[in-house]
Amino acid sequence: MQFASRLQNCETSAIRELFKLLGKPGIISFAGGFPDPALFDVEGFRAASTDALQQWPGAALQYGATEGFGPLKEQIAILSNNKSAPLAEDDFIVTTGSQQALDLIGKCMISPGDKVIVEGPTFLATIQCFRLYGAEVISAPIDGDGVQVDKLEALIAEHKPKLVYLIPTFGNPSGAMLTLERRKRVLELAAQYQTLVVEDDPYGDLFFDAPPPPSLLALSNDVPGSRDWLAHCGSLSKIMSPGLRLGWLVAPKALLSNAVMCKQFSDANTSTYAQATAAAYLQSNRLPQAVNQVRRVYAERASCMAESLHRELGEAVSFHAPSGGMFFWLRLTGANGGETDAGKFAQRAVEKLVAFVPGAPFFAQQPDPACFRMSFATSDLEKIEEGVRRMGQAL
Amino acid sequence: MQFASRLQNCETSAIRELFKLLGKPGIISFAGGFPDPALFDVEGFRAASTDALQQWPGAALQYGATEGFGPLKEQIAILSNNKSAPLAEDDFIVTTGSQQALDLIGKCMISPGDKVIVEGPTFLATIQCFRLYGAEVISAPIDGDGVQVDKLEALIAEHKPKLVYLIPTFGNPSGAMLTLERRKRVLELAAQYQTLVVEDDPYGDLFFDAPPPPSLLALSNDVPGSRDWLAHCGSLSKIMSPGLRLGWLVAPKALLSNAVMCKQFSDANTSTYAQATAAAYLQSNRLPQAVNQVRRVYAERASCMAESLHRELGEAVSFHAPSGGMFFWLRLTGANGGETDAGKFAQRAVEKLVAFVPGAPFFAQQPDPACFRMSFATSDLEKIEEGVRRMGQAL
Repeated sequence: MQFASRLQNCETSAIRELFKLLGKPGIISFAGGFPDPALFDVEGFRAASTDALQQWPGAALQYGATEGFGPLKEQIAILSNNKSAPLAEDDFIVTTGSQQALDLIGKCMISPGDKVIVEGPTFLATIQCFRLYGAEVISAPIDGDGVQVDKLEALIAEHKPKLVYLIPTFGNPSGAMLTLERRKRVLELAAQYQTLVVEDDPYGDLFFDAPPPPSLLALSNDVPGSRDWLAHCGSLSKIMSPGLRLGWLVAPKALLSNAVMCKQFSDANTSTYAQATAAAYLQSNRLPQAVNQVRRVYAERASCMAESLHRELGEAVSFHAPSGGMFFWLRLTGANGGETDAGKFAQRAVEKLVAFVPGAPFFAQQPDPACFRMSFATSDLEKIEEGVRRMGQAL
Repeated sequence: MQFASRLQNCETSAIRELFKLLGKPGIISFAGGFPDPALFDVEGFRAASTDALQQWPGAALQYGATEGFGPLKEQIAILSNNKSAPLAEDDFIVTTGSQQALDLIGKCMISPGDKVIVEGPTFLATIQCFRLYGAEVISAPIDGDGVQVDKLEALIAEHKPKLVYLIPTFGNPSGAMLTLERRKRVLELAAQYQTLVVEDDPYGDLFFDAPPPPSLLALSNDVPGSRDWLAHCGSLSKIMSPGLRLGWLVAPKALLSNAVMCKQFSDANTSTYAQATAAAYLQSNRLPQAVNQVRRVYAERASCMAESLHRELGEAVSFHAPSGGMFFWLRLTGANGGETDAGKFAQRAVEKLVAFVPGAPFFAQQPDPACFRMSFATSDLEKIEEGVRRMGQAL
């Protein structure tokens, strides 16, 4: 069987292969990217599913508008408005997770050979998704404050990319938060170079203390012309439940209408059953309390992980402790002649029954083999301390 | 903003535009392709959603395997086994509606310029979906017994297509049922020409009297080599609920593993919440009774529509009354100097407050402007009689 040529640009995630090792009994895993299921508001969803079938018995089980289920769109608009980014009904569509928003952007924007700029490192599935549409993916360097905007500008000027993809707030895998000043500069670049900037924002609500700076979407009203070159991907996965597979895409009208056309032929519409349940859940107003609980627990775990890392690994690693999200991004320093290959370190760690993800696959170009990602989201404090202790032994 | 070149091959569904006219008060619509929501087993789904969150409180709300949720896969395997097509767990994946199965097949198989053969007429979203991946879509003629296999063979030999797409049972829009003999011949052609045949089977369970012949999937065990060149798309949309957005894709191993890779980057996984609810519903064993009810009601409506059409339109139209599914496919004969343009007829019909779909858009090539599609699924007997009466007046 001869497959489409586009498959040659892509491979199954290296992380996915690693995950097959995680079945080992007794292993402590910091490798995942999943939220903690113990924090899901199961009781709230049980009530919401009953309520949804009561309010919309026909609509919740029927085909729906490709653009999304009205009552859910109302609730998403309220969430967005609460974060200083008001949305009209036709400013956005509901997508089957924000992964589908990325897929639709790729399908609508990328012709084979087009260039796309992403952060180095960035979300692995974005790199692969865009490569499947034939993109040449270029890496812009980051530091603890997110993407380096001067270098980003130079890359835009040089490569004239079809789009720039960023996770400005608590990035995956970097955990970094783009500063307010840099956010404004990114929006200026979008308008100046007439280049689409895609803001992926699944983690913005998961701050530990102070809220992060406003999203690019919220700031775009202050930067003339930038809204015409901005797409924003939102998600309920990290604040409510990934199992619903609900995200949304805000985009300029022409892009949005092409995305709707492509979505018709991708999955017709996002599960109205899941959308109706989410709408009923949001109407019940249980989300603020549930998210506060997630924030509190993740903040404790992040703090415990930072302390454990300092104690157990000391100068062998460097990292910026994140102020939100789910991830630590670390670098082996090689201090005192220690290990600098995160892949080898990960293998030895699995032998000691602790897992994390080597960082190289997160780079579209010039991978840094010394980096790795750890998630604190699904481990309690005792596991975090014990897991990091095992890492110290493995090192 | 410059969009991807692939969008030039595609346009928003003409039907979708027509649907905007259907808001007229008092209109009777035979235009839709939706099942009747009054037949949804709402009570059963209410119980199933509670049961799902009881059985799998974490898993139902968490990310899941791209291949599908285990308990749902077990239930789908049982459904398939009951129709003489046993499936092992790794023979298929769950998809976000069978529309996504088509999208994944397109993404995995079609390079720009590749040829694809479909029935003329066929499901509109399939034509557009494959065109978005750059396919040249070729039309194979059908009659009341489905695709004409001698002509199909000639087209395969001439065009060497990447795949052949068929809806063998109660096709949309044709309502036609491929005979057993032709089914076997299609499978022989797949093996002989080493050409992938895609069987789309959303309607097979909606037979009125006798069950249809076995699916291509069920028959493939009897035709040596054919299973290696057969993909099968199943769906819960027409028998349970389209709002769940649940389908499945059976395919040869290599295609299936590429489809899983592409699905990772399309929507990561199909809503585990919808999958868990469907699994719980199927476990409750309410489906057989619910489907029997749908069959009984649709059979009555189809019979009423056939009688009304004979009475009100007489020789002005020709059609084969379907033995299952949701559609009548008709042709204006022009008898006694009458109308032969279904588009014009549809416009006049909307003025008389009755709607159906002109057939031309369902053809990938050589549209027949005299054809049109009517669905009896969502109208009660009184509406069917009155609607067809109005069609008589419009004609």
